[in-house]
Amino acid sequence: MSDATSRPSEATPRRRERRAAQRLRQLPWRDIRVPYRPYEILSADQVEAIHLASLKVLEEIGMEVLHEPTRALLKAAGVDVDHASQRARFERGFIEQAIAKAPPEFALRARNPAHSVTLGGNRIVISSVGGPAYISDLDRGRRDGTYTDMCDFIRLVQSLNIIHQEGGGPVEPLDLPAESRHLDLYLAQITLTDKTWQGWALGSGRAVDAIEMNRIALGLTSAEMAGTPAQMTIVNTNSPLRLDIPMAEGLTAYAGAGQAVVVTPFTLSGAMSPVTIAGALAQQNAEALAVIALAQTINPGTPVVYGGFTSNVDMRTGAPAFGTPEYAQAVLAGAQLARRYRLPFRSSNVNASNAVDVQAAYESAMSLWACFSGHVNLLYQAAGWLEGGLTASFEKLILDAEMLQMMAAFVTPMVVSEESLGFAAMVEVGPGGHFFGAAHTLERYEDAFYQPLLSDWRNFETWREAGALDGTRRANAIWKELLKNYEQPPLDPAIREELEAYVARRKQEIATSK
Amino acid sequence: MSDATSRPSEATPRRRERRAAQRLRQLPWRDIRVPYRPYEILSADQVEAIHLASLKVLEEIGMEVLHEPTRALLKAAGVDVDHASQRARFERGFIEQAIAKAPPEFALRARNPAHSVTLGGNRIVISSVGGPAYISDLDRGRRDGTYTDMCDFIRLVQSLNIIHQEGGGPVEPLDLPAESRHLDLYLAQITLTDKTWQGWALGSGRAVDAIEMNRIALGLTSAEMAGTPAQMTIVNTNSPLRLDIPMAEGLTAYAGAGQAVVVTPFTLSGAMSPVTIAGALAQQNAEALAVIALAQTINPGTPVVYGGFTSNVDMRTGAPAFGTPEYAQAVLAGAQLARRYRLPFRSSNVNASNAVDVQAAYESAMSLWACFSGHVNLLYQAAGWLEGGLTASFEKLILDAEMLQMMAAFVTPMVVSEESLGFAAMVEVGPGGHFFGAAHTLERYEDAFYQPLLSDWRNFETWREAGALDGTRRANAIWKELLKNYEQPPLDPAIREELEAYVARRKQEIATSK
Repeated sequence: MSDATSRPSEATPRRRERRAAQRLRQLPWRDIRVPYRPYEILSADQVEAIHLASLKVLEEIGMEVLHEPTRALLKAAGVDVDHASQRARFERGFIEQAIAKAPPEFALRARNPAHSVTLGGNRIVISSVGGPAYISDLDRGRRDGTYTDMCDFIRLVQSLNIIHQEGGGPVEPLDLPAESRHLDLYLAQITLTDKTWQGWALGSGRAVDAIEMNRIALGLTSAEMAGTPAQMTIVNTNSPLRLDIPMAEGLTAYAGAGQAVVVTPFTLSGAMSPVTIAGALAQQNAEALAVIALAQTINPGTPVVYGGFTSNVDMRTGAPAFGTPEYAQAVLAGAQLARRYRLPFRSSNVNASNAVDVQAAYESAMSLWACFSGHVNLLYQAAGWLEGGLTASFEKLILDAEMLQMMAAFVTPMVVSEESLGFAAMVEVGPGGHFFGAAHTLERYEDAFYQPLLSDWRNFETWREAGALDGTRRANAIWKELLKNYEQPPLDPAIREELEAYVARRKQEIATSK
Repeated sequence: MSDATSRPSEATPRRRERRAAQRLRQLPWRDIRVPYRPYEILSADQVEAIHLASLKVLEEIGMEVLHEPTRALLKAAGVDVDHASQRARFERGFIEQAIAKAPPEFALRARNPAHSVTLGGNRIVISSVGGPAYISDLDRGRRDGTYTDMCDFIRLVQSLNIIHQEGGGPVEPLDLPAESRHLDLYLAQITLTDKTWQGWALGSGRAVDAIEMNRIALGLTSAEMAGTPAQMTIVNTNSPLRLDIPMAEGLTAYAGAGQAVVVTPFTLSGAMSPVTIAGALAQQNAEALAVIALAQTINPGTPVVYGGFTSNVDMRTGAPAFGTPEYAQAVLAGAQLARRYRLPFRSSNVNASNAVDVQAAYESAMSLWACFSGHVNLLYQAAGWLEGGLTASFEKLILDAEMLQMMAAFVTPMVVSEESLGFAAMVEVGPGGHFFGAAHTLERYEDAFYQPLLSDWRNFETWREAGALDGTRRANAIWKELLKNYEQPPLDPAIREELEAYVARRKQEIATSK
């Protein structure tokens, strides 16, 4: 599948890339750490009350586990399993002992070692949108996702330094066969980026293919791969309190291979969880703890991330809402819960807007501030997510990259030193003067402040004469410029050949088994 | 002169107002308190280093004070004043003793007692845009401000419950004579709203007129008014380190009458202050402390607010930038400094966008999160500010109202209780069920979640069929609807008559003195 693999590598000189990057003023790739104390909205007592409520849920209501082998495994581990009702009830001692086996932080290896990431502590790993069915841009509108769109989007994810990780396919390539399109996605992720990437957990086949193809890309044996987390996937519960068969299979494959699992209940308050945010969090916590405990039962030490995805619905229509005040509260409270268990935490950059407009911006900003101030470790759906996750948007990708860069600059600590306090500059300039020409200014002005990717700070007249382009239309020009300047990262031809052979073989197997 | 005073009061039934309010889903008027611990980005040592640097600035460089009577007052109070150079140098003991006389919190009385506000502690008072020369909306574009625009904007400030205070004239009525237009503004502020409002500090006349007209509106004697802060103004320094004559006169009038002063250095880093944020903050702090100390010297106990307005410029063009990462840092650090002195703190909701677009939204969101999480007490320029403060925008007013409502909902604490944890609901619904029909949901769904003013959560198809209006175009419809439904608050006809007589007399005096 060819667009990704046969497109000639645009081996333009580094100089051109630097020039383009300079014109577009991107921040360089960087680890992001938040040096400030986490912003917290719950007291320790409130955290404990939610914790205890969730343990009571697991003991008395339990989870419905649809996958028979998983029920058998839990029963063997001492969990109270009723096969007739498919219900597993967990004692708190089991949960607490199991989750204690999860590492508080872990690294994920990228094909380009400079792009490897670490999850945990005060670090934030930024992962792009994954999963939408629709794609949109200003020129072509909203439409079904295609393989070409998917590849272009992945190229942009590679080009934007602020994005650490590809998020599992920006859009479904609906023009490819459903049963094998994951193979085309994985090949594109490996060949078009050299960052870490997420695979799909939907069933054993898709999970194993992601792990195997990543193993080939990294040139590792299976044993080496088991000791080197590189692959990551999202495992969602079917809230309320149900784990379905495809997700259980995916979890089993990932945990079994020592790869990372982001356990994320999708607890929409008022629909799939109680209409109170405290209740939704208690249920989120119950589901997350149960599945994290399951992962540790499958393979102790499995790298896991506690995922929170509690938002609310519009109670008049039932429509999901994102980037709401309740969402921000749920992010911050979820991060507090995850810290209680010493687990990395995942949340997301979400919005419910149908257009890349002010609503998309302020709902995303609400999400991002909660994520950054609350010390989210995996910031998923961070760039490109629109319309409650139904659509991946090229302009939203650029808007998000700007907001993410701004947050990254915000968490870069202010330097307070004799030099930076600038007393000598104030003496030099004196009352009523100006600092443009001061020595203190001239020494520092080039890198003094964050320089934007998208914001336009020209005065009104200049801006109007230049076409009066609003931010969304400027974003449209930026993604096209980035795509034009995209350079495919190098890959050993032998590895590429092995990957292509793997894909061909698996497609054959899938076709035969139909 | 008439639009404000002779327009018939639209005495529509309360029912109509309620219906409109319901359709537009505003939050009710409320005190806003932030129950969470302030978000802080500086260590105690860093706060102290900035404090000490600012004291050194005041001792060794000092402030240029252009107003002779103010210099004489400072000299009499023991400050080292050099009349030839107009320089006042302040010992730290003087500063520390003087600022200790300022109240840590104070109330401002509104014409409608239900709309009185308190500044200080963990409260946030939201004050609308003040000062732009231009007005804009989608229909008529950006243009010079007029009296009609000014009045319409003030009506909207009255109509939007989330706004506590009118911010001193949303736009200059450039169609009225410069020397007396403040009287038309004050009359409009008093008659079109019943909230607190800001007057102008530019010279004694404008300051005294604001205080006098507010006194008449409240039906107080001058002695009663002196003990009842009701009027507020912004006093800016001419950064760096200069206090000009009009501002010194305004300060003298307000402090002398026991009215509230917001002392706000305008320290654009790289232009009017050092190119480092730490240096800009040291200078901001020096200027704020000096003028606050002056206010306490004029009248001990004068209610003051420590104002921060440190942002940065685009170092390639010199253009001011707002809502930047550096701005957010300066807000949070400024709030920490103000807390060190037990003074209420002012900051602002700013952006540098030329349009009500994604940039306006994300730069404002950056500002608002810093203001709310940092415990700003006076959130000025909170609604309607566009284009670095050059323009007041009707659509931005609505966008800001939505973002402010969302922040107000975010700081409403989550209830964590046995009831809200919803265990019984989870038992009732069980694994795989849904919560729409649960008793727990039905009891709570109407008020469970924040209901937006501007956000559109309908699905894409419904939204598209309804015209595919983006957020800015929806804001356009909302302000028109609010204006249509505006009701002028009642005012005793005798007071109105007295105010009109005051305005007529003062206009005569001003015309004669020309």
